[in-house]
Amino acid sequence: MTAILTIVLAAGEGTRMKSKTPKVLHKVGGLPMLAHVVNSCQRAGADKIAVVLGPKHQESEEYIQKLNAGIETVTQHEQLGTGHAAMQARQHWQKMDGYVFVLFADNPMIQPETIERAKAVLDDGADLVVVGYEPKNAFGLGRLVMEGDQLVRIVEEKDASEQERQIGFCNSGIMGFKTDCLNAIIDKIDNANAQGEYYLTDAAQIARDNGFVVKTSTSPEAEVLGVNDRRQLAMAENTFQQRMREKVMIGGVTLIAPETVFFSHDTKIENDVVIEPNVVFGAGVTVKSGAVIHAFSHLEGANVGEEAQIGPYARLRPGANMGAKSKAGNFVEVKKSDIGVGAKINHLTYIGDAEVGAGSNIGAGTITCNYDGRYKYKTNIGENAFIGSNSALVAPVTIADGAYVASGSVVTHNVEKDALAIGRSKQTNKPDYANTIRRRWSEKKD
Amino acid sequence: MTAILTIVLAAGEGTRMKSKTPKVLHKVGGLPMLAHVVNSCQRAGADKIAVVLGPKHQESEEYIQKLNAGIETVTQHEQLGTGHAAMQARQHWQKMDGYVFVLFADNPMIQPETIERAKAVLDDGADLVVVGYEPKNAFGLGRLVMEGDQLVRIVEEKDASEQERQIGFCNSGIMGFKTDCLNAIIDKIDNANAQGEYYLTDAAQIARDNGFVVKTSTSPEAEVLGVNDRRQLAMAENTFQQRMREKVMIGGVTLIAPETVFFSHDTKIENDVVIEPNVVFGAGVTVKSGAVIHAFSHLEGANVGEEAQIGPYARLRPGANMGAKSKAGNFVEVKKSDIGVGAKINHLTYIGDAEVGAGSNIGAGTITCNYDGRYKYKTNIGENAFIGSNSALVAPVTIADGAYVASGSVVTHNVEKDALAIGRSKQTNKPDYANTIRRRWSEKKD
Amino acid sequence: MTAILTIVLAAGEGTRMKSKTPKVLHKVGGLPMLAHVVNSCQRAGADKIAVVLGPKHQESEEYIQKLNAGIETVTQHEQLGTGHAAMQARQHWQKMDGYVFVLFADNPMIQPETIERAKAVLDDGADLVVVGYEPKNAFGLGRLVMEGDQLVRIVEEKDASEQERQIGFCNSGIMGFKTDCLNAIIDKIDNANAQGEYYLTDAAQIARDNGFVVKTSTSPEAEVLGVNDRRQLAMAENTFQQRMREKVMIGGVTLIAPETVFFSHDTKIENDVVIEPNVVFGAGVTVKSGAVIHAFSHLEGANVGEEAQIGPYARLRPGANMGAKSKAGNFVEVKKSDIGVGAKINHLTYIGDAEVGAGSNIGAGTITCNYDGRYKYKTNIGENAFIGSNSALVAPVTIADGAYVASGSVVTHNVEKDALAIGRSKQTNKPDYANTIRRRWSEKKD
Repeated sequence: MTAILTIVLAAGEGTRMKSKTPKVLHKVGGLPMLAHVVNSCQRAGADKIAVVLGPKHQESEEYIQKLNAGIETVTQHEQLGTGHAAMQARQHWQKMDGYVFVLFADNPMIQPETIERAKAVLDDGADLVVVGYEPKNAFGLGRLVMEGDQLVRIVEEKDASEQERQIGFCNSGIMGFKTDCLNAIIDKIDNANAQGEYYLTDAAQIARDNGFVVKTSTSPEAEVLGVNDRRQLAMAENTFQQRMREKVMIGGVTLIAPETVFFSHDTKIENDVVIEPNVVFGAGVTVKSGAVIHAFSHLEGANVGEEAQIGPYARLRPGANMGAKSKAGNFVEVKKSDIGVGAKINHLTYIGDAEVGAGSNIGAGTITCNYDGRYKYKTNIGENAFIGSNSALVAPVTIADGAYVASGSVVTHNVEKDALAIGRSKQTNKPDYANTIRRRWSEKKD
Repeated sequence: MTAILTIVLAAGEGTRMKSKTPKVLHKVGGLPMLAHVVNSCQRAGADKIAVVLGPKHQESEEYIQKLNAGIETVTQHEQLGTGHAAMQARQHWQKMDGYVFVLFADNPMIQPETIERAKAVLDDGADLVVVGYEPKNAFGLGRLVMEGDQLVRIVEEKDASEQERQIGFCNSGIMGFKTDCLNAIIDKIDNANAQGEYYLTDAAQIARDNGFVVKTSTSPEAEVLGVNDRRQLAMAENTFQQRMREKVMIGGVTLIAPETVFFSHDTKIENDVVIEPNVVFGAGVTVKSGAVIHAFSHLEGANVGEEAQIGPYARLRPGANMGAKSKAGNFVEVKKSDIGVGAKINHLTYIGDAEVGAGSNIGAGTITCNYDGRYKYKTNIGENAFIGSNSALVAPVTIADGAYVASGSVVTHNVEKDALAIGRSKQTNKPDYANTIRRRWSEKKD
Repeated sequence: MTAILTIVLAAGEGTRMKSKTPKVLHKVGGLPMLAHVVNSCQRAGADKIAVVLGPKHQESEEYIQKLNAGIETVTQHEQLGTGHAAMQARQHWQKMDGYVFVLFADNPMIQPETIERAKAVLDDGADLVVVGYEPKNAFGLGRLVMEGDQLVRIVEEKDASEQERQIGFCNSGIMGFKTDCLNAIIDKIDNANAQGEYYLTDAAQIARDNGFVVKTSTSPEAEVLGVNDRRQLAMAENTFQQRMREKVMIGGVTLIAPETVFFSHDTKIENDVVIEPNVVFGAGVTVKSGAVIHAFSHLEGANVGEEAQIGPYARLRPGANMGAKSKAGNFVEVKKSDIGVGAKINHLTYIGDAEVGAGSNIGAGTITCNYDGRYKYKTNIGENAFIGSNSALVAPVTIADGAYVASGSVVTHNVEKDALAIGRSKQTNKPDYANTIRRRWSEKKD
């Protein structure tokens, strides 16, 4: 196996994002752009990944450390171009025998297959490979001038001849090198240009001039979209969402209106699930076969069992485990709770830090009072229990199997199996008193 | 009047749907695809409809029986092609004198006008009519080779000459026959092809060779979209929704963002209704003139009166009848209840199995406790009553005209006209006790 | 400075809107179309604006008066064409020395820059300027026949030669005049045409025939879209929303799914705000830097402080002022209330007419009972107070700093600093009584 290093350039300032957050930490599908690129490198078989950061990118550094994935970081203290950035990572490739790929952290949609296609070109004998693509509109882009299957040079719009401007095959900036080639040419890249920067792009012609074989591979345009402002971030997000929607539909999931369903990078949906319009998945959701996610639902960190019914307007928060055939209906929030098979939470309810046994029914307006301002407490509800509407269950509290809580009760003590708990005031009626209230109003000046 | 039989082919396996449900029962606009096609047949004047089902399509059979619309079913025990399917329905056309149309249950967007155009071609003298269309991209499709207004033959991509591949007019598979033509040729269709299937498509050339007049009619591309996987199902749904949106907007309804409003096949909206973004209509909704449906509302089986205000975030469930100028506001669910003229249910409320009289006001957080775990009970609220916030109304219970329920009450007994009901505990204040609670926290180890 | 009058034509019947409301009062971005055009006139430097109304447009007249912006109105008693409409406003330009522009109230997307470009053509020496545009499809539109930079004539589709039909530059109907030109030609416009109407369009050729210099300026197609039915209204809304989305994204706001976020004409969002899918902004919203607006939120007349967290499913109504780092979570409604720094209202709560001090925590299911059927009352919650879940706070009431309300309480009296308020019933358990209930069910006939 050839050793593979990928260098991911993440040192750009990203000023057009107008953000305190480093550009490459802005998210697509809930995951930082940088992580998308790192994932694609790993899936393409990279043995080592080095990320080149800017000097003020402490936040990116910390993010990478937290990933704990053995990723190296390199600081580029001055922004002197992509060639310069690659030079900063020299320690990682200088003594290596293998392939080095240079990618951009702000190309979040790059797929492993595109890296693999580039790798195959090196495998086939090239010393250097440039990833090209055919954009809808090539104006302003660097063109790849080919001679047969060899890349002759990369020419910028302003330097291109009339004929070269007709070329539709453009430079993505992504490149791959055999290490001996890279070692031979890297220091030949100079900064004799208007910007005074070192362009890695120049490597192509230098390599060819030094007798190396320079070829190209291809990428779909959407994968090499560079994200420099929030509009491009939205475009990348859209590409991501469309991929996910296609994937789940092919897998046998009905999306009534695919364009209104938003997935996270790690959403898992089994076949024969129906997802109605306007559903948002945060990170870490699994939905089992036969479940229905009704309109306007929002799920995050939740597991939905087979044939469960979620929503409309259900919010499942992290740790919500909905059993098979269970139900969370409208204006229901479930957090860090296990809901048993066939249990029903139909309306206007908050269930947090709770267990609800199989077959239990939680009435409308029920609130688990799980927080005292400092600590959180657990509510245990057994199987086939019935919680009457508008009840408050003050945790810690246990309501045993088959127990019954009368509507409108505040439950502060445990309820035994098959017992009835009632905790509400007696009603008093004052005849004609509503008229008294209205009389007072009319005596008041409005 | 010519007798018309339509044969609807619904025997396909639909394996790419990856579903336990037969393909033709998957829904568009809330209605199974099969029902869409059957409806179009009926609206085009079909006297008899025969649906050809596969041997495992018990669920489809039951659905058709439940429709109770006099539809015949025929079982195709082996999947031997469209010609074979038509043969299975022979009992329905053999002794008939009239027209036979063959349609596909997985073409849910077919419109009666398209069937009528095909019929007109038979009326005008043709013996067989093939419905053609001009797709955006004809590659891979069967081309209709014409000679003047006569169809010479249908040629598949792989068998087509260079010149035939230039033809943009393609075969939808939908055909119409005069019964004498069909009787004359049906048994001439053979299965001498790679798949060993009987193709109804072959009927066109056989009919021509036997001296029958074979012509074509046309269809918009969207109507003959075949649904074979969930992506195509989503495309059919999109076609359906766009039709409905156009229709209601032409009728004088404002859709601020048409692409975010989802209709059912039977939604009825009068003019001068405003529908804000993100509204979902389930089956059986009627909205009267001047009403406003605010954002994020979800309506199903509900009637909305003139100038009523619904939402944002209102869920109207089956049997919710909202009177003129009434209001159901945010996080409000109404089910099987009649809400009087001008009555207001503004927030965070569940009203189920209730009557609310004209002019009454239901405070925030009110819950009708209508279920005891086994039975449902009714809540009757008179006219101009006032239900204070966070009240629980334990059904069966009546709150008469002009009565007043104090905030936070649990109401278990009837309240007379103009009476005040109060059912809440007295408040006790324990001075400085919050400090005691906090002191205990700090003594605890976190 | 040249004096500028803009005449805004708003007299059309608008029958295709099928509405009781005059067409020009239908809204785009929450603002009547008429106001959009008036705003663009003002921003382009108009000194005077005269709106031409139909005789039945009392509602438009009232709207203009309410704007209180010194706008003149003129009534066109008979609908005799655009030239006739301009004549009705004669009193406003006859004795004026300057420029007169004629615009349409049903072109809501017109931008000041387009008016300014037309003005520049007059500044540069033209006596009359016609605003042209290049539509995607020119069929049916009046073509602008040019000779160099001079407009020779405007020719309608039906009168155009084959060559003229090739012209892609079309008449928007919007025109500008120097007043001496307008005075010289206005009465030369006649109604000798099939409709018997006076067309302002005829002014172009009449002016040229009388020795005036007639030129053109340009407009993007989207700005001159005429709104005649609800589909076109939806198209204008879409143009408006796309402009707003672009603008906020360029300003450094993340829109995860721009196409699902709906702005009002006056929405203000600072940089580094993240807006999740499906958010609707009504009028008068400001969001400060670093705030997150989660999915399914609806804001109107609200201010959101720095780093505040709103939603998912939060409804902020007019007068909701959310302090920095404060939180309004799911199924929470806030109205006319000041929420202090870092205060949390996490779930299923209604806060109306209230103040919530910094650091306070409002439990799930809390309701401020602010309305007695006639009057509204205030709730004051101090700093670092804790309101237990499912409490009802019956206004007017004050809960002082550091106070604690027990879960499930109804609070009717003030609570002092650091005190604990408790207002709930004692719980009673009846052993085995749930079995009794179930036994009764089984004795009942279902």
